[in-house]
Amino acid sequence: MSLQKPLAIALASLTLLFTSRVQADGLKPEEMIKYRKAAYNFMAWNMGKIKGSLEGNFNKDAVANAAGAIAAVANSGMGALYAPGTDQNIGNEKTRLKSEFFKEPEKVREIAMNFNKQANELVKVAASGDAGAVQTQFAKLGDACKACHERYRAK
Amino acid sequence: MSLQKPLAIALASLTLLFTSRVQADGLKPEEMIKYRKAAYNFMAWNMGKIKGSLEGNFNKDAVANAAGAIAAVANSGMGALYAPGTDQNIGNEKTRLKSEFFKEPEKVREIAMNFNKQANELVKVAASGDAGAVQTQFAKLGDACKACHERYRAK
Repeated sequence: MSLQKPLAIALASLTLLFTSRVQADGLKPEEMIKYRKAAYNFMAWNMGKIKGSLEGNFNKDAVANAAGAIAAVANSGMGALYAPGTDQNIGNEKTRLKSEFFKEPEKVREIAMNFNKQANELVKVAASGDAGAVQTQFAKLGDACKACHERYRAK
Repeated sequence: MSLQKPLAIALASLTLLFTSRVQADGLKPEEMIKYRKAAYNFMAWNMGKIKGSLEGNFNKDAVANAAGAIAAVANSGMGALYAPGTDQNIGNEKTRLKSEFFKEPEKVREIAMNFNKQANELVKVAASGDAGAVQTQFAKLGDACKACHERYRAK
């Protein structure tokens, strides 16, 4: 048996998962694009705060707060905002999501779970207040973001 | 002595606070507009999840998660995204913020603090898993949002 069958099953399961979530949330595809971009932009602002703190005067509380905000995004179930078809601009909502995203569910899951893991780890590290440890973990989180951007986000 | 002097001092302090934050974060005014809209949209998605849960099958974990995301936004120090001048569209970033926002710092603070309080209270109530209590607190949070929209957001 080739690998195609398990992949097809995984894809079908994922599609089902997405579809049921779409129905549960009652979101239109354009709303999904809007909300996921909002989530990433809210996260980007908080990434910027940590970057600024690492490059300037390290502010433990500000870093811990920003790490918490990033983790809130990572833990918010963003998979529900990626229904099939949302790799196209819809109405006024533009997306750079590549179609490959829907063809590699296992890879997407792996990348998403690593992002989640690194974001939650940053919360723990930030609580320690150790600037060096934050710098290291922040870089790991950045790599996790980049892994998805490089594979699934158009230039 | 009239009320004008204390008000002027309060406004000057707030302006100073905003200015120093702007410098610390290194954000351009258009980035402030972008990020604050992102934060509210990320929040709106999570408000929608709770609304959906209250109107359908109440999912304690989903509601608690969404309440946490809303509180993360409320606690993220969004005041830093409201520098004077950001009541105008800048570049591609459009805003509906009314100029009144910068003329009533005490009122803004009161509304902002109430929003913060209601969002954090929702986290506690959501942890209890009591759907009725969530409904009551969710309405209070909605009123807190509305208080700002009605006073400072253009139609």
